[in-house]
Amino acid sequence: MFVVVIAVVVVNTFLSFFFFFFQKIRIFFTNFLFVVQQKGPWSEDVGTREGRRSHALTEGRVFICASLAWMSVLIVLMGIWFDYAVGHFEEQMELYPYFRDVLIMVLFGFGMLMSFLRRYGFSANGYTLLITALCVPWSLLLGAFFKRLEDDTASIGDTYFVGLEDMLDALFCSATLLITFGAVIGKTTPLQLLVLVIVEPILFWVNIYVIIFKLGAHDVGGGMTIHLFGAIFGLAMSFLFTWRFETHAHPDNTSCYSSDLAALGGSIFLWIMWPSFNAAIAVGDGQVRAIINTVASLCGATLSALVASRFIGGNRFDVVHVQNSILAGGVAMGVAADLDVTIGGAAATGLITGAISSCGYVYVTPWLAHRFNMQDVCGVTNLHGIPGLISALVGIIATAALDDSLFAHGSSQPVYQMSAMFVTIGIALAGGFVLSALLRFVMAPLNHIAQWNFFNDRTFWHLPSDYDAVAGSGLTQEDML
Amino acid sequence: MFVVVIAVVVVNTFLSFFFFFFQKIRIFFTNFLFVVQQKGPWSEDVGTREGRRSHALTEGRVFICASLAWMSVLIVLMGIWFDYAVGHFEEQMELYPYFRDVLIMVLFGFGMLMSFLRRYGFSANGYTLLITALCVPWSLLLGAFFKRLEDDTASIGDTYFVGLEDMLDALFCSATLLITFGAVIGKTTPLQLLVLVIVEPILFWVNIYVIIFKLGAHDVGGGMTIHLFGAIFGLAMSFLFTWRFETHAHPDNTSCYSSDLAALGGSIFLWIMWPSFNAAIAVGDGQVRAIINTVASLCGATLSALVASRFIGGNRFDVVHVQNSILAGGVAMGVAADLDVTIGGAAATGLITGAISSCGYVYVTPWLAHRFNMQDVCGVTNLHGIPGLISALVGIIATAALDDSLFAHGSSQPVYQMSAMFVTIGIALAGGFVLSALLRFVMAPLNHIAQWNFFNDRTFWHLPSDYDAVAGSGLTQEDML
Amino acid sequence: MFVVVIAVVVVNTFLSFFFFFFQKIRIFFTNFLFVVQQKGPWSEDVGTREGRRSHALTEGRVFICASLAWMSVLIVLMGIWFDYAVGHFEEQMELYPYFRDVLIMVLFGFGMLMSFLRRYGFSANGYTLLITALCVPWSLLLGAFFKRLEDDTASIGDTYFVGLEDMLDALFCSATLLITFGAVIGKTTPLQLLVLVIVEPILFWVNIYVIIFKLGAHDVGGGMTIHLFGAIFGLAMSFLFTWRFETHAHPDNTSCYSSDLAALGGSIFLWIMWPSFNAAIAVGDGQVRAIINTVASLCGATLSALVASRFIGGNRFDVVHVQNSILAGGVAMGVAADLDVTIGGAAATGLITGAISSCGYVYVTPWLAHRFNMQDVCGVTNLHGIPGLISALVGIIATAALDDSLFAHGSSQPVYQMSAMFVTIGIALAGGFVLSALLRFVMAPLNHIAQWNFFNDRTFWHLPSDYDAVAGSGLTQEDML
Repeated sequence: MFVVVIAVVVVNTFLSFFFFFFQKIRIFFTNFLFVVQQKGPWSEDVGTREGRRSHALTEGRVFICASLAWMSVLIVLMGIWFDYAVGHFEEQMELYPYFRDVLIMVLFGFGMLMSFLRRYGFSANGYTLLITALCVPWSLLLGAFFKRLEDDTASIGDTYFVGLEDMLDALFCSATLLITFGAVIGKTTPLQLLVLVIVEPILFWVNIYVIIFKLGAHDVGGGMTIHLFGAIFGLAMSFLFTWRFETHAHPDNTSCYSSDLAALGGSIFLWIMWPSFNAAIAVGDGQVRAIINTVASLCGATLSALVASRFIGGNRFDVVHVQNSILAGGVAMGVAADLDVTIGGAAATGLITGAISSCGYVYVTPWLAHRFNMQDVCGVTNLHGIPGLISALVGIIATAALDDSLFAHGSSQPVYQMSAMFVTIGIALAGGFVLSALLRFVMAPLNHIAQWNFFNDRTFWHLPSDYDAVAGSGLTQEDML
Repeated sequence: MFVVVIAVVVVNTFLSFFFFFFQKIRIFFTNFLFVVQQKGPWSEDVGTREGRRSHALTEGRVFICASLAWMSVLIVLMGIWFDYAVGHFEEQMELYPYFRDVLIMVLFGFGMLMSFLRRYGFSANGYTLLITALCVPWSLLLGAFFKRLEDDTASIGDTYFVGLEDMLDALFCSATLLITFGAVIGKTTPLQLLVLVIVEPILFWVNIYVIIFKLGAHDVGGGMTIHLFGAIFGLAMSFLFTWRFETHAHPDNTSCYSSDLAALGGSIFLWIMWPSFNAAIAVGDGQVRAIINTVASLCGATLSALVASRFIGGNRFDVVHVQNSILAGGVAMGVAADLDVTIGGAAATGLITGAISSCGYVYVTPWLAHRFNMQDVCGVTNLHGIPGLISALVGIIATAALDDSLFAHGSSQPVYQMSAMFVTIGIALAGGFVLSALLRFVMAPLNHIAQWNFFNDRTFWHLPSDYDAVAGSGLTQEDML
Repeated sequence: MFVVVIAVVVVNTFLSFFFFFFQKIRIFFTNFLFVVQQKGPWSEDVGTREGRRSHALTEGRVFICASLAWMSVLIVLMGIWFDYAVGHFEEQMELYPYFRDVLIMVLFGFGMLMSFLRRYGFSANGYTLLITALCVPWSLLLGAFFKRLEDDTASIGDTYFVGLEDMLDALFCSATLLITFGAVIGKTTPLQLLVLVIVEPILFWVNIYVIIFKLGAHDVGGGMTIHLFGAIFGLAMSFLFTWRFETHAHPDNTSCYSSDLAALGGSIFLWIMWPSFNAAIAVGDGQVRAIINTVASLCGATLSALVASRFIGGNRFDVVHVQNSILAGGVAMGVAADLDVTIGGAAATGLITGAISSCGYVYVTPWLAHRFNMQDVCGVTNLHGIPGLISALVGIIATAALDDSLFAHGSSQPVYQMSAMFVTIGIALAGGFVLSALLRFVMAPLNHIAQWNFFNDRTFWHLPSDYDAVAGSGLTQEDML
């Protein structure tokens, strides 16, 4: 076990180092990008309308064939390997209400929250459905594989019995992907999302295998495995998914009144269902604690997000903070929701996290954008990244303070919690970076969306007649060139 | 029992024959319609504004009196006949989560999905509430009557004890009516809906009595009794509820960006709650299988609906398919969700059904409209009709393949499933046709909506000041005449 | 106990007397207001833009400091006093589905329903979140205090064990505050809401202490403690929260098509979850009865609200009645939902209440506004006040008609129910009036919103670029002065 911990520290030192020299490397990459985009054999025609059109056709054909083929492979594997976990249905059905609540969060909550972009509603909801539909069966298979690795009583090829706990894990994986998607939303093609939905679940499960199965970390609400992992993965991807000035100042990278209200609706449902999210896999009294702690933390975060919003926003509230930062309290309880952190402690954690999250939208997101050229579109850093980090710290403190007999590793549990945090960050950083490089360089023609069609539905959707009139006119090609 | 099967075959042969000569008969009816509309004593003034106004007043007065009188009758009957089913509340309360989920589908899901029409939001939601409010007590009474017919231990007049399983059945009946409503939405008056909500539940329960109580068909999620029945009923009604060219090309028979997003919200909630819909009346392990199968099938259908949409839509997604066809996977599991169709099998069924449903919107709906002059406004054929048929076929295959001991009729269960399918189609076709004839001919003045007010709220609703500005201006009387 | 009853009668006689002389007193207050507004040391600059700006800064600073300080006090008190109620988690988790359903009503239902104001969507949802976040911990503390007062086995200072039943009570308190907020929506500052959320929960719990703990009244769904209390409290506040002519004729005190649809979405979710609301604290068979009665009553109210709407609205439906009056059936079952009122009786009660509620919007609200200068913005009188009164009457009749052994006071239970009703009205009237006087006179500078910014988000929110274009232009300063 110590070997793992040491390996982790080494990897993270390397990554921190790497992060430190980010800008140097970025300049290199930018030059490299410039070269490949202008001269590379595969993308010489990306700058022209005809080139883009032919790339779009290619992307469309590959997407249709690849996604059908991939789904067919998953179906065949499920057909060969899976059976229903029957014989203890009462125990399983106890999980169903949580499954349904998390499903509300994944499909309605995330989908509507990401519809805050005024011209991206079809894509936000459509891609949320696409990602979930592809992720659930794939994650079921991956989960079965990694759970079998840990299971001494059965060999990997034996029939795996799928129960509602596996379905729930698959939804957690979908939530992770949607968090990542939030960081690069508006700039990806469906085919790129297909690649994302093939690659990221593998790393999600590798991370779970390492930190939960091997390191025995405590993470009841996915504070590390879902929120921190998804946010860091997306942030790492955003580095290569940020283009020139136009990306930042894009006229469709904004909301309108009705899209803000739709996002509020999604956000409010996320709030409502968050206690279920954190309590889903808790057991016994831990479930009661998870619910009470999450509600207390959400109340604290809601108040402080609103107050901080007014404090730093010139005496006015900012609806972005209401849509996002109020939820930071739920994330902050992600690791330790079922532990005895005290009700006051949970509320205080939420109070601090909500304020930090609101400030993140005002200070951290622009700083990342201007200093590192990393555009975090939905601000997942502030909603999932930093609060996820806080939840990991709360977990470390809680496992240190509470009775040793509660945890797998007794008094050394905090060390394992910390290792788990670093492993999560490491895997997510490396994974996000490598995946985004793959998508940008190897699969360059996939990103054939013209920059003036970033953050809108025009490239991939049939549009209603009033689309161009939504919230005034968007930018046209002429405005951009 | 054989007599029933034979009767069914005879009825369906006749109906198929009838359907074959559809067009001939239609021409006759069209001529007949022309005559009665121009010359008939009750409708000579339908073509004038004053005539419509007086009809509207008549319709309004009759609606107010008739619906209050009808509700009063229902209340008196409930008062005389019903008592609460107490004494086993724990067992009953297990049904409550499913009741609530189905209620979300019925009121929010269907209501919002049908709000896709850009100027019909008030009507879509208001009539959904009206239909449900009238259907629930009436269906409770009908269900009690037909359940008593099967109950040898009590005579019909004895007090009936209403439990949550009866309430759930009443919601299923409401869902059926809302599917039917989807086929003729935008062209009916409240009074016509009142007649619909009096007549269709009777046939819904007759169908259940025949195929479930008598034929012993397996239909856990209402694939036949709800989806197939409701869609065929609506389709049969649409034949006489399609007017001239203006109906098809009507400028308000379209969506706008915000109405599409509202419909997406309803559709996503239908997706989320569909596992509950299919698992509600399943028992034991069947409930676990119903949930897993429905989710697997929905994932398959979501992917293939999106892929098919892009394939047939010139490289772009169509939001209509995202709103509707992704749900076809839930319908496809309607009959056999709780059976061991294997997880891969469920996903594959969804994959096939979703693609067929998307194609249906592009090919079947226009074909019905132009070949048979049947306008299926919401496309219930593609979302409920064809997937309902697929679910019946899946049921036949599953009952043939699975262990005989599971089913009431052992190895001959598939024959009964097939009979049930034909009975459902027969009753729904005949019922829909007769009812629509009743509404059009006998009650001609009820449909006093001018064609330029089809698909909008103008005739029956007080409107906010911005109504005419929603998504550009609609058609006015002058444009149409 | 008789002393209490007598005291109540005296208080109510006084209050009725007071209400009778309302207008006389109002004239005095109006004159007083005129004097203090023109001459008072604290408000001499309210009429000028600079004065308002400086007041806004003051209000903002005080709001930020006071709400953080208040939340910190609550957190410290929770930290000192609270622990988790563990050891009987299965019993507690049975409450969780109801907790979650009520949470959907509180945050999504009320928030979206109050977004019917076309330019007040951010405020409606944001303040709903603010009120709930502040109310939940405060109500937990108050509830613990009053429950301890009744508990002979523990002294007040002993650690209080918080369970899901306490969390549920806290949500009920939030619902009460949101009902009150509905009466004065659009005219309050965040700081005024902070004061409201400090004061009203105290009176809410005092009322519960008197009528439930002391008088032993039956009130399973909060017909008196929540709906009647919240509505009367808000109505009493509205007396001093109604300004000149401009308040009534304000151009932003209206809806647009999309805001009406959002409110319909909230209303429909309230409908769906109302059975859970009324059944949450019922026990045994009472829970089944509460669900069936509430659904029956809602069906009745939905029909009669629609019919009445058309009857009094010139043959057209009014969407305001669909958004609100359909829910009156749920309120009408508030006191007696779990009793054997018979299913027909529940539906008939709903039928009557829905019609009265619709009529209330057409006749009572304008009458209050013009006769008493009380502007009830959301019409809580018609949705919660009158139906709450009906629910109290239903409770009196039901306790008189049913077996005496069911109730704490046997055959004299109806007297206690009636006393409870008067106590509720008395406390709410007095509380609302005193609080509003406090907010208007003592804290005059807090209400620095210019009248042309009533009912819109301009004063307190950062706005998207299309805000002014929403539903045509609103009133500007120039139009008003």
